[in-house]
Amino acid sequence: MANQAKRIAELIEPLRVEPGSRVDLAKDFDPRYKRRGLKKKHGRELLETGIALLADYQRRLAAQNTYGVLLCLQALDAGGKDGTIRHVMSGVNPQGVHVSSFKVPSSEELDHDYLWRYACRLPARGDIGIFNRSHYEEVLVVRVHQENLDRQRLPESAKSGKLWHRRYREINEWERYLTDNGFKIVKLFLNLSKEEQRTRFLRRIDRPDRNWKFSSADVRERKFWDDYQKAFSEMLSATSTEHAPWYVIPADRKWFGRICAAAVLAHTLIEIDPQYPTVSDERRLDLLAVRRELEDEAPEGAERDPYAAGHGKKRKA
Amino acid sequence: MANQAKRIAELIEPLRVEPGSRVDLAKDFDPRYKRRGLKKKHGRELLETGIALLADYQRRLAAQNTYGVLLCLQALDAGGKDGTIRHVMSGVNPQGVHVSSFKVPSSEELDHDYLWRYACRLPARGDIGIFNRSHYEEVLVVRVHQENLDRQRLPESAKSGKLWHRRYREINEWERYLTDNGFKIVKLFLNLSKEEQRTRFLRRIDRPDRNWKFSSADVRERKFWDDYQKAFSEMLSATSTEHAPWYVIPADRKWFGRICAAAVLAHTLIEIDPQYPTVSDERRLDLLAVRRELEDEAPEGAERDPYAAGHGKKRKA
Repeated sequence: MANQAKRIAELIEPLRVEPGSRVDLAKDFDPRYKRRGLKKKHGRELLETGIALLADYQRRLAAQNTYGVLLCLQALDAGGKDGTIRHVMSGVNPQGVHVSSFKVPSSEELDHDYLWRYACRLPARGDIGIFNRSHYEEVLVVRVHQENLDRQRLPESAKSGKLWHRRYREINEWERYLTDNGFKIVKLFLNLSKEEQRTRFLRRIDRPDRNWKFSSADVRERKFWDDYQKAFSEMLSATSTEHAPWYVIPADRKWFGRICAAAVLAHTLIEIDPQYPTVSDERRLDLLAVRRELEDEAPEGAERDPYAAGHGKKRKA
Repeated sequence: MANQAKRIAELIEPLRVEPGSRVDLAKDFDPRYKRRGLKKKHGRELLETGIALLADYQRRLAAQNTYGVLLCLQALDAGGKDGTIRHVMSGVNPQGVHVSSFKVPSSEELDHDYLWRYACRLPARGDIGIFNRSHYEEVLVVRVHQENLDRQRLPESAKSGKLWHRRYREINEWERYLTDNGFKIVKLFLNLSKEEQRTRFLRRIDRPDRNWKFSSADVRERKFWDDYQKAFSEMLSATSTEHAPWYVIPADRKWFGRICAAAVLAHTLIEIDPQYPTVSDERRLDLLAVRRELEDEAPEGAERDPYAAGHGKKRKA
């Protein structure tokens, strides 16, 4: 077990954004990166090991009911957010997992502070909450397309000055508050190359069973590739903190990206190390007394069934 | 108008907790304080002026839809929270006012971070949200009765160290975030004397029509009077900030306390100074064109009513 924890920590170490570092996404993280020597044919087995580990830890997390986990997934279109959730979380009891997808905000959401819709969907203790797109959209799509900012109806004073740096600080403070109160935040950025995105879009157009996944709007967004790369780089630099670091998941090879995503989540759960609650000696004696009572009880139907009166076995005194 | 704003500012100045100051509630604020020379017989008129002002400003706040206001009311039992809301807010359009009362937390609420239930009830832009008891309960009743803290299922690490000071900081950061994003926070502490609380409890017992207001639990809480005074003093010292200062409302004289509460809220709205949206010249021309169309339209029924065909006036060309 300790060995497993160590292997997981080693696997994800190169993906972690060092808090305080200045990230240039194009230079610092390769979307095609994979661990040396690891082959796709071993990938399935490795992922299954990871999923079994997650399922076990999630049961303990729910039983302990003290910590909560929030997994934030960010990526460009076709980056593999949906597939990551499906493949990594499918083995985990859905009673303890809640996925929230954030799309175009409603007018009620726009009328509130920008973190409001995310805050309302935070996981409870014992749960794993997954944000499919997260509060980081507020410094990504809202930044690249400033008309989104205009729709937030902010007062002029809130738009002036270093708006994005203020948001970075506000997000960091919020995440620190959540962490300090028992909610661990896991942040994954699925890092896709422009070429691989093109390949995936073409597949979505060519394969009828993938057509539903394709939207022309996605291709329009592709024109803002460089703006997004810049926004991602700044976001990773400013919001990778000791309490909630970012992990850049190489997303061009889906099979390896999923192993990494499972590993980062497993790493967090290993750190939390949730335990099944134990009972006091006194409570244990209570349980044993109840056990004896249940043992001594007449077999079902013996006394309660009026039709069986006189026919069933009598309860021993 | 400017004169009125000045009078309001003067009235509330002595009630404001200077940010950074160390408050000793018992010494620094008199529950029986009232403005010199002000008589109860003038109180009703003054309050009505204040309410009319609030109603006007609320309409503008809603029309502009850029700022929101959050009014937080804290007090001991019988401090007059309900009466303040009723008397101060009754003249304001309820469509723009939302009151949230926070009582014993549900198990769902306890399973979340401690600010969660308050965050979910935050007002939208254009609205006045009123918290009847607020997130400050988390450093008041939760502090005085530590079993409330135990029920929050915090991890051990979150309970150790300077828990209350961390909460003060977290609350200050949260309120700063909200303020910077266009949500003004008005914090009123209704300051009641122990003697006046006793009088009000006795009235609730003696008058049958007030019996429903009385709970024996309130008298049990009275035994913790000194603990509460200490918790209030520390809270006022630590969380009265430039962006969201506390006001200590003298609550022994209800009529004066209500005038003060209305005045602090009015002061905030005057500072926001919300304006009815104006339209561009182009839009104005559009409106005039529509106006002409409506004028030129045939009187109702002239052409549309088949039974009137040939009998009504014809539309002029």
